[in-house]
Amino acid sequence: MAQRHLDPTAGPVAGDVLTAYLRSQATEFLRALRQHRETGGAAGGGPLARAQSSVGGNGSREAVDAARALRRSARRISGTLHTFRPLLDEDWSEGMRPELAWLSGTLAREHAYGARLERLLAALQRLSGSAAFPAQVTSGVRTEKGGLTVGAARAGALLERQLTLARTRAHSAALQALGSSRFHAVADNVAVLASEVPLSAAATASAATATTTTAVATATATGLKPLAAAAEDRLCDAVTGLPLVTAGHPYNSQALVHGLSTDTAPQPQDAPWHQVRLLLRLHRYAREVVFGDEVRVDVRLLNAGQALDRHRDASEAAAAAAAAARTPRIAPATAYALGVLHADQRHEVEAARFTFQRTWTRETVGTA
Amino acid sequence: MAQRHLDPTAGPVAGDVLTAYLRSQATEFLRALRQHRETGGAAGGGPLARAQSSVGGNGSREAVDAARALRRSARRISGTLHTFRPLLDEDWSEGMRPELAWLSGTLAREHAYGARLERLLAALQRLSGSAAFPAQVTSGVRTEKGGLTVGAARAGALLERQLTLARTRAHSAALQALGSSRFHAVADNVAVLASEVPLSAAATASAATATTTTAVATATATGLKPLAAAAEDRLCDAVTGLPLVTAGHPYNSQALVHGLSTDTAPQPQDAPWHQVRLLLRLHRYAREVVFGDEVRVDVRLLNAGQALDRHRDASEAAAAAAAAARTPRIAPATAYALGVLHADQRHEVEAARFTFQRTWTRETVGTA
Repeated sequence: MAQRHLDPTAGPVAGDVLTAYLRSQATEFLRALRQHRETGGAAGGGPLARAQSSVGGNGSREAVDAARALRRSARRISGTLHTFRPLLDEDWSEGMRPELAWLSGTLAREHAYGARLERLLAALQRLSGSAAFPAQVTSGVRTEKGGLTVGAARAGALLERQLTLARTRAHSAALQALGSSRFHAVADNVAVLASEVPLSAAATASAATATTTTAVATATATGLKPLAAAAEDRLCDAVTGLPLVTAGHPYNSQALVHGLSTDTAPQPQDAPWHQVRLLLRLHRYAREVVFGDEVRVDVRLLNAGQALDRHRDASEAAAAAAAAARTPRIAPATAYALGVLHADQRHEVEAARFTFQRTWTRETVGTA
Repeated sequence: MAQRHLDPTAGPVAGDVLTAYLRSQATEFLRALRQHRETGGAAGGGPLARAQSSVGGNGSREAVDAARALRRSARRISGTLHTFRPLLDEDWSEGMRPELAWLSGTLAREHAYGARLERLLAALQRLSGSAAFPAQVTSGVRTEKGGLTVGAARAGALLERQLTLARTRAHSAALQALGSSRFHAVADNVAVLASEVPLSAAATASAATATTTTAVATATATGLKPLAAAAEDRLCDAVTGLPLVTAGHPYNSQALVHGLSTDTAPQPQDAPWHQVRLLLRLHRYAREVVFGDEVRVDVRLLNAGQALDRHRDASEAAAAAAAAARTPRIAPATAYALGVLHADQRHEVEAARFTFQRTWTRETVGTA
């Protein structure tokens, strides 16, 4: 459907399409940056902190939205520079990508700590049965604090302390980053992108009217679609490497195989899944570039991506619970609750893999 | 197929069939009891303890087998007295059932503690990744003790101490029971059963040649098949009350809903499943009575029963881990490992429910 005007020999050429996408993302980035400054995103406490404490008004919510939009466009620009790098000026894009990654990484951290805390506190509530069996909450050994047991309440307080501290630090780091000359250089580069995209010789060649066979071949090899297809291939290859057969068996107990290690390093078994998550995102962005405004929501990609987001979040939350359990001098009841919480989040990891497997294979079979 | 000689009007009558079954179970009981005494089942240390420490020779293994056979026939006699009580002398069977329940319960306890410890230690090994990823066992923070972390090793030692003590006490209690006059009364009753089964007036009536319509009706109402069907109905009714829709969704997180309560009381949500397990057993024994030697293994019942056994075992193991975590002055690392272990076993509970749901509904659909 979109093919008709993506074929470099018929309609807008690759360079034009790529330019249009990058320009719109750059414009989006600059708008989000302006909004972030106007809504006081740089003020103390952090947008997320204020939004969560519900002290802030619309301003905080807008600042959170602005920060999200900033990350969103930074990721898209960075991903596009990566997937379509043969079409772009090499020196320029190679220099810009790590800077964008640094920026979106720095901005994401504050949000991630806040979301992790929310996830863990919700899990503590759920594990205390307060959501599912409200009638039993106030009976027995539970305290009055939202139906939590002493251990759960203490574990929650410990996690709140640790993750709030981490979030505050991430907020300061983000503030510092946004005020740095390094950031201003990134913003300047994005501003350039909003007006003119530095294309490579290959992209310029494809822009010329393709009258000779050689020119057509060149344009095709470095065209949008082959590069987008290569991104999809990288995704599919990585998915092939995942233990999907195991993941497709419910309750396979694989995610908790290192559940008793209090090692806070990320679990090695999670890494391939995180990698697929990144490749899925790149594939999704490449589709946005190729199909432009006509891009249709691919429910399979959406669901698979959400499963992998959940996988990542649960994996990191489990690690945070394990890390908290290594705090010196905590009470055994606190440690016990953190152990239950850790195992619960590793089960979430396993559940997310199961969901991913179902989503991915069902749709593959359906469309094959 | 078995119908032809179970119809009270054609072939052996209900009382005869019931008598044959009870006699063979009573004979089995007496043989197991003799074997248990001969193989030194009453010697110190307990059959299970010696079998597990692999110090004992064939004698211990035989004693374990004898104890199992004793429990096995005691359960069958007791279950049969319950299901077919209208066919048996009421006073006699009502007096005998609680005594058989007391005996099999007392004998089962020693075995249960041993099996629970085995299950928990195996889970600790699995959760330390020693089984699935042997290459990584010796790296990182793990100690040399079978690849366990410090917390896991300590948790294992604590559980071993507590459950071995419980098992030793159960062994003493079993010994005391087997030497008691109460036990001798049970054994005497079973010996009576081996030679003559005290039938009720109804069973005797059905034994007379059924020439009148009234006699046939009486025989049918109190026949083996209606009573066995009633046992099956009780099972099916109880299954209907289970949350099977939820159980059929993998990773529904229901079993861990009270995961953070360190309350050692059994989880109320498990009770209906335990009840179904008992009713399933009664149904299985009733089938043995009705079909006699021609009874065919019903794979569905077998698998469903195994899932419920696993449910019960995991439920009790989870409770044991939670109970161990309440030991005063344990290290936080130990408590953490026990928390992970508890959650893991509750997850097993959930997995067992899922398996039961799949087994039960698939076969129901298949045969409907």
